[in-house]
Amino acid sequence: MQSFTFNPIGYVESPFKDKFGVPRQPGLASEAKGIIKFSSDPDIKTALKQISEFSHIWIVFVFHDHGGNKWKPSIRPPRLGGNVKVGVLSSRSPHRPNPIGISAVELTKVDLEATGGPELFVNGLDLIDGTPVLDVKPYIPYADSIPDANAGWASEEIKRYPVVFTNEADTFLKTLAEDDQKKLKDLTIQVLELDPRPSFKKRQFPAEDPKTWGQNYGLAVLEYEVKYTITEGQFLVTSLSKSLI
Amino acid sequence: MQSFTFNPIGYVESPFKDKFGVPRQPGLASEAKGIIKFSSDPDIKTALKQISEFSHIWIVFVFHDHGGNKWKPSIRPPRLGGNVKVGVLSSRSPHRPNPIGISAVELTKVDLEATGGPELFVNGLDLIDGTPVLDVKPYIPYADSIPDANAGWASEEIKRYPVVFTNEADTFLKTLAEDDQKKLKDLTIQVLELDPRPSFKKRQFPAEDPKTWGQNYGLAVLEYEVKYTITEGQFLVTSLSKSLI
Repeated sequence: MQSFTFNPIGYVESPFKDKFGVPRQPGLASEAKGIIKFSSDPDIKTALKQISEFSHIWIVFVFHDHGGNKWKPSIRPPRLGGNVKVGVLSSRSPHRPNPIGISAVELTKVDLEATGGPELFVNGLDLIDGTPVLDVKPYIPYADSIPDANAGWASEEIKRYPVVFTNEADTFLKTLAEDDQKKLKDLTIQVLELDPRPSFKKRQFPAEDPKTWGQNYGLAVLEYEVKYTITEGQFLVTSLSKSLI
Repeated sequence: MQSFTFNPIGYVESPFKDKFGVPRQPGLASEAKGIIKFSSDPDIKTALKQISEFSHIWIVFVFHDHGGNKWKPSIRPPRLGGNVKVGVLSSRSPHRPNPIGISAVELTKVDLEATGGPELFVNGLDLIDGTPVLDVKPYIPYADSIPDANAGWASEEIKRYPVVFTNEADTFLKTLAEDDQKKLKDLTIQVLELDPRPSFKKRQFPAEDPKTWGQNYGLAVLEYEVKYTITEGQFLVTSLSKSLI
């Protein structure tokens, strides 16, 4: 079989610095704002003309950091609590034969003149920092939007948990500029309310199960470390701190 | 920049044997029925489990036959009559830096046990026969469906022209089995009503312009050659015949 080789035309700059905490689909966390930074090749700038006419775009990207190069025929979708196996091609998991992803995101600003290459500003990102971008395409509702499609095992409504902050976490927030406070707090809530823990942990201990309460977890958003635990079925942010990396 | 190499997991069997006549987006021609034929690798069969739960899927494919390997920073979208240039990344044209396409199609039947490898039967295809498939994904409305997205220059309604058949074409249809008659006639109408001519011809002669009437065009659907002309703003099928290839 003939193989095909592609070169990224850009990279994603994302508030998610590692895979823990990345929302599992686009559009789930409106505060997940990022930038697609394109190559400075002048042809790419020409190729992006008129993109600002569109409210939403597709990002076609490579799952470059999904832990291992080998694909998995079956996966345990986090939204099924890690209890059920499904075929990987019947899921949106990164562990696919060809690790290509597609994400529809809101396009909020276009800067074709940025130093270093054109930039597209997007909301609702579900991609990790540094994700290689192979293509962007305008979202065209008449071809792309099928509101009544049957989503099989993925049709169940997405569960969101309450998120609360300790005094310590709140105190840290108050040391930040007002804009940064809001950005970090809103994004932390939007990430934690989806239960971002890896699926094997959810399988052992769903957030409702007292056995999981009090265990410590961590993740990175923006330039901060978020430490959290679960108690009484709520996600509790125990501390926030400036990331050391 | 790091490059990425992908191997097709299957190929599309399509009623469109060459690029002339292929609808320019999925879902425009419901009679455009095809089959995705997958590799016989047993892991692929496992990977496709549960896919039948979904009504629609994404096909992630390679534009392998778009006339030349060089990409074009600007293209003239056929739906703008070939008169306006737009950046290729602001379009769904095949002439992209990385010629990867995505098409949402209806999934009508799944045969995981087919000899030669699993088969997915789809409707609303906009792909040419032999298109290499890199990935399939379930269509998930909460992530993929944005009915109110603003489609910029592509928001204008798609124009459909009347299609009529000469007696000669009708006579040929009657030589076919009833099912085949209907299939060929419906698909021919659905292809021609979209004005499948290349955009440079539309630019010179829109279908409404008498200067274009009487010119002869041809394309291939299913196993047939379709010859047609335009007259009085209608698409007239002048002859149908069994394809020699």
